Formats: sequence, structure tokens, C-alpha cells
Amino acid sequence: MKGVILARCPSCRLVDLTHEVPPQGIVQAAFLLEAAWPFFGAGSIHLAVVDPGVGTARRRLALAAGGQYFVGPDNGLLSAALPPAARGARRTGEGYSPRPVPVPPGVECVEIEPDPGPRSATFEGRDVFAPAAARLACGASLADLGPPLQEVLALPAFRAPRAADSAIEGLIVHADRFGNLLTDIDPADLPPRPVFRLAGRDVSLAATYGEAAGLAAIVSSNGRIEIALPNGSAAALTGLGPGDVVRVEG
Amino acid sequence: MKGVILARCPSCRLVDLTHEVPPQGIVQAAFLLEAAWPFFGAGSIHLAVVDPGVGTARRRLALAAGGQYFVGPDNGLLSAALPPAARGARRTGEGYSPRPVPVPPGVECVEIEPDPGPRSATFEGRDVFAPAAARLACGASLADLGPPLQEVLALPAFRAPRAADSAIEGLIVHADRFGNLLTDIDPADLPPRPVFRLAGRDVSLAATYGEAAGLAAIVSSNGRIEIALPNGSAAALTGLGPGDVVRVEG
Amino acid sequence: MKGVILARCPSCRLVDLTHEVPPQGIVQAAFLLEAAWPFFGAGSIHLAVVDPGVGTARRRLALAAGGQYFVGPDNGLLSAALPPAARGARRTGEGYSPRPVPVPPGVECVEIEPDPGPRSATFEGRDVFAPAAARLACGASLADLGPPLQEVLALPAFRAPRAADSAIEGLIVHADRFGNLLTDIDPADLPPRPVFRLAGRDVSLAATYGEAAGLAAIVSSNGRIEIALPNGSAAALTGLGPGDVVRVEG
Repeated sequence: MKGVILARCPSCRLVDLTHEVPPQGIVQAAFLLEAAWPFFGAGSIHLAVVDPGVGTARRRLALAAGGQYFVGPDNGLLSAALPPAARGARRTGEGYSPRPVPVPPGVECVEIEPDPGPRSATFEGRDVFAPAAARLACGASLADLGPPLQEVLALPAFRAPRAADSAIEGLIVHADRFGNLLTDIDPADLPPRPVFRLAGRDVSLAATYGEAAGLAAIVSSNGRIEIALPNGSAAALTGLGPGDVVRVEG
Repeated sequence: MKGVILARCPSCRLVDLTHEVPPQGIVQAAFLLEAAWPFFGAGSIHLAVVDPGVGTARRRLALAAGGQYFVGPDNGLLSAALPPAARGARRTGEGYSPRPVPVPPGVECVEIEPDPGPRSATFEGRDVFAPAAARLACGASLADLGPPLQEVLALPAFRAPRAADSAIEGLIVHADRFGNLLTDIDPADLPPRPVFRLAGRDVSLAATYGEAAGLAAIVSSNGRIEIALPNGSAAALTGLGPGDVVRVEG
Repeated sequence: MKGVILARCPSCRLVDLTHEVPPQGIVQAAFLLEAAWPFFGAGSIHLAVVDPGVGTARRRLALAAGGQYFVGPDNGLLSAALPPAARGARRTGEGYSPRPVPVPPGVECVEIEPDPGPRSATFEGRDVFAPAAARLACGASLADLGPPLQEVLALPAFRAPRAADSAIEGLIVHADRFGNLLTDIDPADLPPRPVFRLAGRDVSLAATYGEAAGLAAIVSSNGRIEIALPNGSAAALTGLGPGDVVRVEG
């Protein structure tokens, strides 16, 4: 992919964003992309390809949102670029499955038409998405890549719902390389004295890693709650990981 | 290595190609380099150092082939840059061991003469190959690096041979981070209804990951056969990896 | 961090130095940084953030030393930039704990004053250190980042001490991805016929990987002794790793 981009747009600057997305980890990739892209400058192009549906009829997207571009498969990954309200402001109990939503105001979206000619059955990152990103990088407009779309697949916003008893039913979406457990719990939803229940433990809120004595809940750098073990791995201590539940009462 | 290059040629652009090559994995590195380099633009320099012989008398090479440059030890790794016919068009049953071949027409090759002065015994990537690549990047010619060579060590072309019964005797050369098992089987060699036998299983050909129901053989993005488990790891399911055999009948 | 830097200083060139530092590995990070930075060109900026104290009162540093810049937390990591003599020329038996040392002649140091406004409790790499590095990259001086400091926390120089019986008491500081065990033993301290004792084995000095027959001690590319197993992993063979002892007699 890097060769394809630089061969077509030699002035392009390449940045590796993360090596932490697991195979087929569409939801994790969207979660990490959502945390990172607002820190990039206007005109940045985010080429994001987690693509288990490669070779099937799934569509290929290029989006413009927030002054930046996003290129990838139409499987929910690029919903990282959409405002939460456009995605369903909060997931339901069913978790993070993509569903069609209208392209919201302020977002432009096209379906990439691949170049004619042979391409591989397994690697459209190289054969379709990288060429499209290179065209954007060297001055093409979205409209040059294909026809406009009115609807895309989107994951719900990363915000945990409430149970019938008003407890928050959080989900661990990602475990980072430090073993921090990143959840979809929004601090704005927390009760005054929240208790985080996970793996048979009750965990309290701490302001910083330094303040925590053992396992703690902390407002993460992405604005949501993470479960962390200072100088250790919360994932290893608890045995929990993506898909596991963190319930909050208070 | 990156510091050495940028200190000597600040306008150079650095690209990390892969972090997947295992220690001493000369054959795997050649396999991955062969799959990638044709997608880079003219004048690109591929600095490839898998070098268990560092500090011994093994030669140091710089090659020009296909409009691009290749710098690394003379141990077979840089045969990725040579046309298959020049390498022995197909391996024999002995697998991928390097042997001397003439430098073919259209390829230029020199033996790098290290700069005088001290250098480490363990890291010529930093002390010899990176400086040579930096010189090429900033305008030196191959001839500036050292005297021409007429012969280099090359691995056979990555193409499985036939057994006496005309079955194809494929080899798994690499397992990627998805657990796909990349083989040296060329689709052009396949019978009309191929059956891939591996780990006590019979596996069929599928056109895409999406079409496969379970373990399948697919034409990989490098033009050879891979064994894949859609949404899973073929390596984990089968317990197979580099060096294991995939026999094809039909 | 990459987005923050490029958004503020688009002409900046980013280099990933290593992915090998383990979580909270301040000492290993300093060891790797010390080995790498002298090979970079004048004006390079090394943004090094291993920061278990993030969110506490620990200070934030920017240093100029050896014609290059260093940005990171005041926890000993940036002592990689200081001359060994300024750090305590040799560790004592207590190992590598940071202690305050005067900023030595030829080194400039300031305490970074973060921009006003909100910042996360867990990721000053993104919110404080990357912005500071971007300012330096686009022409700010050290003095623009904050007030000068006369004292910083420093790790002792990476040089093993002698025991009462004059044996060298080396420490394994890092195991690299090849399984080489990198120690703090300085070859200048070795007796004429050194014997390296580790994990119940006696190991001799070899000049190169190629010359070694099995486990051997070799002068590493960072100028200190490493324990290596050619075409294998010394770490896997011995079961040793960072913090373990290598005693040298002779």
C-alpha cells in the first residue's frame, strides 16, 4: 500500500497510526480511529482498511468530514468520521453492529469505482483503497472517485446504554498494549459516586494513574472510562478483554 | 539505521515495509520483498538486512533491477529483485537454499566497499548498508559504491515443483499476522479441480474469503496460493507454518 | 502524537525509533535511546515518553545536548542525552534508579510549561510533549518552552561496577527481538581472558556471530557486551532477561 501511494503521489507523507488493531477488528479500528483523527490537520487522509468482506459486494467508500478524508470499506469502520448523533447516539444492548444510516449534513460520501483491470481477490487495500487515497492526496476531489452516496453503514456511537435499573452497562471495546481496558462508558453518564463492577471486583474512580491504589477507573485520553492498573496490566489481572462487561452503579 | 540515513541524506523518505520477518528469516524476507517491491516507484531503494552472517566474509551487495535499487547482504535475500528465470525457475525438493547464479542481463550489481574506519561486529545494517543506501538516495551511482560483480547468491524462484506422480509439492513459506498460510504454489500449475492436502485435510479453491466456507485455498495478492480461514487463523486451526508441505492433486 | 505534531508543524519528518520498549520500561528506553541518538543528525528532536508518572507532579523536560533535542518526562529517561560522567560514571549495586544531578556544562534544560486549557490525565505524550516537540521542530527555542532548570533526574551511566573480588557484576538491561541479552558490561573493563557466568553456564568472548559456537559474549553495536546465540535466542535458551546478572571473571 505504501509503495502504491508513493509511486502515484510522491509528495505524500505517510503515517502509521497504530499496529494494535487485531485481525477483523472493525469495531476496535473504528474506536481507535475516532480517538485519533481529530488531532490531525485539515486535509489529512485516513486510509483505514479492516476488510473481512474483501472480494464480496460490499461497497468502497471515500468520505469527507471535519475537514479531513476517510477511505475504506463500507462495513462500519468509517463511522468513526461521523458525528455520534448520526450513528445512533448510544448503542442498544446488542452491541456494535453496523446498520445503514443517512449520510448526515456536513459529510460528503462517494462510492469508489475501482480502476478497470485486474485486481487481487484478497487485498483491495493495495489495489483499490491505496490508489483512491493517492488520488485524493494529489489533488483529486471526492467526486473524481465515484458517485455520491446517501447512505452508509455505521456503528452506533461509542456510548454505553442504561439498564432498566439505571445502572450503566459498559462494554470493553479495546485492550491497549499496556493492558488498559478501554470502555464505552461516558463520564458524563456517571452517578456522583460510581462503583465499577467487573470480574467480581468493585473499582473506584481515580483522577490519575499516580493517584490510583491498584485497579482503578480513569477518564482516558479519548474521553471515556478506562480500567487501569498503574505499573501493571488490568487485562492480565482481571482476565477481561474486548466484549466483556463493566457495570456501573452508584 | 534511520538516523544514519537521514543524517547523510536529509531529503530521503523512509518507509517501514514490514515488521513480520522473523529473526534469520532470509527466505521469508525475500518472499515478502518480492511481493512488495514492484509496487514502488522508479528509483526506490530497498534496504533489506536479514543478516545472520554479519561479521563473516559474506559479501555486501547493491543491485539495480527493474528501475529500483536493492541493498543488503549476499545471502539470497536480494534474489527478490532478480527475474525468476535467473534464479532457477523452480525449486527442487531441497527447498530454498541460496546458490551462485550469474547476474542476469538488465541487472547491475556491485560489491559494497565499506567506508574505512571502525564498525561494529553485529550491525552492518547501521554501519555499512544504511550509509550505502543513503549515498544512492542522495545521487551516488552503483559504481560509486564498489566494483561490479558477475555472480550473486540467489534463492530458487518461489514456484513449487511437481512430484513423480505429477502432484504439486507446495511449501508454506510464510504465515502472516492474520494466520494466512502463504505457499509457493503457482495457480498456473493447478489441475482443473485441485485438491489441497494439508494437516490431514482436503481443501478446495475459493475465489474470495467471502465465498469460502471454512478453510480454503485462495489466490493471494502476491499471485500464489494461500491457505486461509475467513474470520479466523488457518495457522492456528491447522498447526502448520513455514516449512510445512501442501500437496495438490486433482 | 503524530497527528498533533504534523498539524502544528507540517514540514516535520517523523521517525519511529523502536517498538521494543515494554510498558513502564524507563531504563530500557534510556538504554535504547542512548544507543540510537548519536547516529541522528544535528537538530533532530527525540520525543521519548515512557511516563508512568503522568498526571502527577513530575516535571516535563526539554533538553539540548550534542546538537540535538530531547523532550520527555523528568524520570531518568532523558539521561540518555547526558554525558556518562554527569550521571554518575558507573552504577552501584543498587541498579538503575534515577537521582537528581546538576545539568552539566554544554547541556541546556528547561521545564516545559504546558499550554493552558484542558488536557487528559493519562496521555501527556499527546497533550504536552508532542506540542512542545512540534514547537521546537518549527523553530522555537528551548527558552520558548519554559524556564531553565539546573537539576534533572538521571540514571547512572550504563557501566557495570566491580565486586569486592574485582569480578564485574554486569546486569542484563534489555533483551532484543532476536533474543540477544544486552548488558551494561563495558569491554574496556574486561580482564584478558574473561569468563561470563550466567544461568549456570560459562561463556566466552567471540568476535562475531559467525565465529561463535553456541552461546557467546560479543561486543554489541552499542559498544557494550551482549550475550548471543547465533541463529537462535539467548533469552529462550537461558531463561534470562532484564534485571538478571552476568558475572565476569578472568
